[in-house]
Amino acid sequence: MGKDDRLFVGVDLGGTNIQAGVVDADGTILGRSKTKTRPENGAEAVVGRIAKTIDEAIVEAKRTRADIAGVGIGAPGVIDFDHSVVVTAVNLRWNNFPLAKVLKAQIDLPVLLDNDVNVCTWGECCAGAAKKFHDVLGIFVGTGIGGGLVFGDKLYRGHFGSAGEIGHTILHADAGLGRRTLENRASRTAIVNLLVELIRANHASMIDKLVDGKLEDVRSKVLAKAVESKDELACEVVARAAHEVGVAAANAVTLLSLPCVVIGGGLTEALGSAYVDLVRIAFRKYVFPSELRACEIVQSKLGDDAGLVGAAFLARQPS
Amino acid sequence: MGKDDRLFVGVDLGGTNIQAGVVDADGTILGRSKTKTRPENGAEAVVGRIAKTIDEAIVEAKRTRADIAGVGIGAPGVIDFDHSVVVTAVNLRWNNFPLAKVLKAQIDLPVLLDNDVNVCTWGECCAGAAKKFHDVLGIFVGTGIGGGLVFGDKLYRGHFGSAGEIGHTILHADAGLGRRTLENRASRTAIVNLLVELIRANHASMIDKLVDGKLEDVRSKVLAKAVESKDELACEVVARAAHEVGVAAANAVTLLSLPCVVIGGGLTEALGSAYVDLVRIAFRKYVFPSELRACEIVQSKLGDDAGLVGAAFLARQPS
Repeated sequence: MGKDDRLFVGVDLGGTNIQAGVVDADGTILGRSKTKTRPENGAEAVVGRIAKTIDEAIVEAKRTRADIAGVGIGAPGVIDFDHSVVVTAVNLRWNNFPLAKVLKAQIDLPVLLDNDVNVCTWGECCAGAAKKFHDVLGIFVGTGIGGGLVFGDKLYRGHFGSAGEIGHTILHADAGLGRRTLENRASRTAIVNLLVELIRANHASMIDKLVDGKLEDVRSKVLAKAVESKDELACEVVARAAHEVGVAAANAVTLLSLPCVVIGGGLTEALGSAYVDLVRIAFRKYVFPSELRACEIVQSKLGDDAGLVGAAFLARQPS
Repeated sequence: MGKDDRLFVGVDLGGTNIQAGVVDADGTILGRSKTKTRPENGAEAVVGRIAKTIDEAIVEAKRTRADIAGVGIGAPGVIDFDHSVVVTAVNLRWNNFPLAKVLKAQIDLPVLLDNDVNVCTWGECCAGAAKKFHDVLGIFVGTGIGGGLVFGDKLYRGHFGSAGEIGHTILHADAGLGRRTLENRASRTAIVNLLVELIRANHASMIDKLVDGKLEDVRSKVLAKAVESKDELACEVVARAAHEVGVAAANAVTLLSLPCVVIGGGLTEALGSAYVDLVRIAFRKYVFPSELRACEIVQSKLGDDAGLVGAAFLARQPS
């Protein structure tokens, strides 16, 4: 079989930014572009900006639209994959928007669409940390926590199309509302909220100083800096959150007998391998039966580009 | 396509009893037999008793061995499905015993082997409560809690062959050892242990009277009688356990976006639909997103015969 020399554009569509990149069969990004999403200007305007970002990435890669075989998009929210429709995307303010169809009319290329976390998982399977595995769970930790599942080298979407919502699985069945799920306990939002609450209750932490007392400005990078500096409070809160991710991964692997879990997302990128090590320790403690400790807990290799590369592979190897 | 008029024998091999039945394509049991397992006499002796039970069931069905197309077995413990070997079965005292091969040498019929809970799930999918669904989770509540998964009309065993261990998923990550998992909280063993503990601590319950003070004799039937009689303590403990099963089912469906969960096993048989109703209420409260409330939580239709019928279908429709 000859080398697949087709090029695809992957688009990572977020509430704040649009990123596009021209991606080859190895997952290498040959050219890229980034612009603001500005959802307040309406869906049609956003599609115009997506088309422009795609064209800029193609120019950056020193190619033309004729060199591109297709476009893949990862979008936030609930996606109807079969009909390429964004059902609901709160931070885009979209409901039942036929994104693929509208974009295709503008750029005259095949367009495939799936939700951002499925696309990230697919990227890690096709060209990232899970390349050698056929069955994979992806867990992406950021503002929220999302997941994606690959069974037998195919994205698994489930009967209702919503598969992968590991962030909404319950790890503390007796806890109060807003304290029960993985996302409630381990997202960046949950970590920051808890830290801010503790600092306001006079627990000592360097974070207060790092943001000049503006605790509403705490983001992943500030958190990472505090952890690197061995700030006791930040380390403890992050360790507990990593532990929760490990327990959730153990639950999924106990149920599904998987050989690989990829841990990614903005928080993972910021905190790095020390964070993934903590996830792995909890995973190994709780997974059952003990043979499943052989399941590999790996850190995302594509990092912030998982969405972009994964989207290009969605178009290259429809799944 | 003509009607499939082949007959298969299904064997439900337990630590206490061996049950065998001749099963047709509709799942009807044409003849059956039951005998004690007596694992203390060694594996070869148990195989002899299995062969005898099979022959008795065939006679009961007014057939001969020549009328039988094959045999399926559901066995407790860890099964290597690919090699038809019982890897570990604590209550049979077996390790790495090639059950299918040894039995085939005696009865000269094809023999397929899987673990009891996979076989029960498969039975409910082929001829029971989940017949119209292609993707199903089975949860079987008895002494312990086991689970089985069917994706796309096939049993899913996972990379390490252990898929379905929902009883060992964690619902109380902060609880002490022995109080964290679904099985720790909701198996018959867990329910009885808690009830006995509470009764010994002078909580009022009719159970004490039902077993003449011999609390070590509390079984599913006693429990069912107490619940039917609206014994407050028994009702509360059972309701809490059912709630846990509902949360675990919600976690699995949140992750897998499934259209159907079958609830079965000895405790479910004893407690009936009122118990399944409680499971359903908790499931609907906790599953995410809310569209997944459409997932049907159904009670096992095959009841105590799920293992026997499922084993016959394992041989009929290898999966």
